[in-house]
Amino acid sequence: MRIHIQNPPPPADGSPDPFIITAAQVEQAAARGGETEAHTLSFGNDAASFAAGIADAEAVVTTPGQILGRFPVAAPRLRMIFCTSAGLDRLLPFDWLPPGVALLNNRGVHSAKVGEYSLMALLMLAARVPAYATQQRAGVWKPFFTPILRGRRLLVVGTGDLGAAGAREARRYGMHVTGVRARPAPHPDFDAILGTDALDAALADTEFLLLACPLTPATRNILDRRRLGLLPAGAGLINVGRGALLDQDALCDLLEAGRLSGAVLDVTVPEPLPPDARLWRTPNLLVTPHVAADNPETYNVDSLDIFFANLRAARAGEAMPNLVDPGRGY
Amino acid sequence: MRIHIQNPPPPADGSPDPFIITAAQVEQAAARGGETEAHTLSFGNDAASFAAGIADAEAVVTTPGQILGRFPVAAPRLRMIFCTSAGLDRLLPFDWLPPGVALLNNRGVHSAKVGEYSLMALLMLAARVPAYATQQRAGVWKPFFTPILRGRRLLVVGTGDLGAAGAREARRYGMHVTGVRARPAPHPDFDAILGTDALDAALADTEFLLLACPLTPATRNILDRRRLGLLPAGAGLINVGRGALLDQDALCDLLEAGRLSGAVLDVTVPEPLPPDARLWRTPNLLVTPHVAADNPETYNVDSLDIFFANLRAARAGEAMPNLVDPGRGY
Repeated sequence: MRIHIQNPPPPADGSPDPFIITAAQVEQAAARGGETEAHTLSFGNDAASFAAGIADAEAVVTTPGQILGRFPVAAPRLRMIFCTSAGLDRLLPFDWLPPGVALLNNRGVHSAKVGEYSLMALLMLAARVPAYATQQRAGVWKPFFTPILRGRRLLVVGTGDLGAAGAREARRYGMHVTGVRARPAPHPDFDAILGTDALDAALADTEFLLLACPLTPATRNILDRRRLGLLPAGAGLINVGRGALLDQDALCDLLEAGRLSGAVLDVTVPEPLPPDARLWRTPNLLVTPHVAADNPETYNVDSLDIFFANLRAARAGEAMPNLVDPGRGY
Repeated sequence: MRIHIQNPPPPADGSPDPFIITAAQVEQAAARGGETEAHTLSFGNDAASFAAGIADAEAVVTTPGQILGRFPVAAPRLRMIFCTSAGLDRLLPFDWLPPGVALLNNRGVHSAKVGEYSLMALLMLAARVPAYATQQRAGVWKPFFTPILRGRRLLVVGTGDLGAAGAREARRYGMHVTGVRARPAPHPDFDAILGTDALDAALADTEFLLLACPLTPATRNILDRRRLGLLPAGAGLINVGRGALLDQDALCDLLEAGRLSGAVLDVTVPEPLPPDARLWRTPNLLVTPHVAADNPETYNVDSLDIFFANLRAARAGEAMPNLVDPGRGY
């Protein structure tokens, strides 16, 4: 098979980028997967090498940023685009996708890391760490004594790999976890699953809210000002999905008013945040720079295992587990 | 039995204090414990009510602060002082303790809460959250991609209830956990146990250091400047024991130099920290105001259960599990 790897360009400052895929990593993944079909690799990290590689590639492994705006392109043999991100919202709508080409995302690669991050953020909100960080800026020592997680309530919007990973960790510590998704169905990692039509009612009973769904036209601003206002006083919020899932200014207003007790955001609008962004200065809010889900030690290894598993499924005539549904956007 | 409860005074601002023990809580604990012996309660929260209560009390339940400097006192019937703290370092040396009076601490009450706190702090250090909080002050978006906890190394100084609770959580996430204690002996919550004489060598191989031992003359400044300097570049430090276990200025120097990657301190010298304390401004350092171990929803309930369990042990002629050894200081 002709496989083209379109990497991001190396960092301008010369620092190593653990997410750049190497030929050795591809060969090792092929060996782990027991690949018997020969493959020919090409690599690129700019427009010229993309054009050269895509010209005869059957499969492309890339990030969304490296193909954004590069279609249509002459790619007569292309059958599959594997993106090493879970969220492909930057590529929406998928009207650029050539007919007959399968688009795959990288769901499944983030579970362990985002599970630990979500648990960390829950523990931080429960213990009021964002408030302590705000007090620290002012040199204020003021304790808040808080209980453990057991018995407390978490609402997770999005029950895919990210949301389920957070739910598992929360239940490990005795929390009661409700998931919200567009098409409700029982899920082993949740105590209850609700449809999006029940979101308003669920918010009023939520102590902790974890946003972990894909960004699509249906979920953009799903936590708008009105819905954020439904959260009870003292609730805490975590976002590991996409910044545009919520109304950031409304969140800042609620935090400044002391209505919400804290927030931990790994994703924001825009990214990176500019130095004068309101989020940096909002009390009881901690920002991490989009690092919640990516383990540099395992990312490429696991991503390539997922890629080859999908290749094998396609070859066997089975459904590819990471196939994106262009209609729903993930 | 004549039991005197010496509570701290109520907060000056009129706010509720969940750690003030009520008569109903004592009666409920006695009922839970199946107490058949009648008891007579008295309560106090100032010098006069202490003197009145201690005059005929057989047991006193109190905080260290409420008896500090109040002995010698006329207490002819006194047999037992139960302190609702784990660390009694403020009362050292115990030369004020009347002969024949048993001093008990509250070890065991903090496990669940301090376990969650220690795990939170480990996850925060592993994910570089203290660095993000520092960057947030400056409006800087700079990611550090970090692996999960699995396989990473934690050194815990102190293998009592606090240290063991942290060790259990760390091992739940696949960390390799070594404990250091004065009298080494195998412990089910640790992969290895070393004596204090092996501390220097262990520090050089430590990614995360958790201080969780009592403060005694033997442990005061146990992490002095020399020992902090033995930690490898990039190590992170957590303190849930007592501030005086380490050289705070040396810690600040190492953080400012970028030698250590971060620190999370729940205990400091002094407490509360004054507004101009260096710790507030040290980069990659987060301070929480001595809240790591105290669950307000369960503290009095669990403390009183421990108190009555010790009473029953004494009545049965058994060793009291919470008896403090005046010689070693905990």
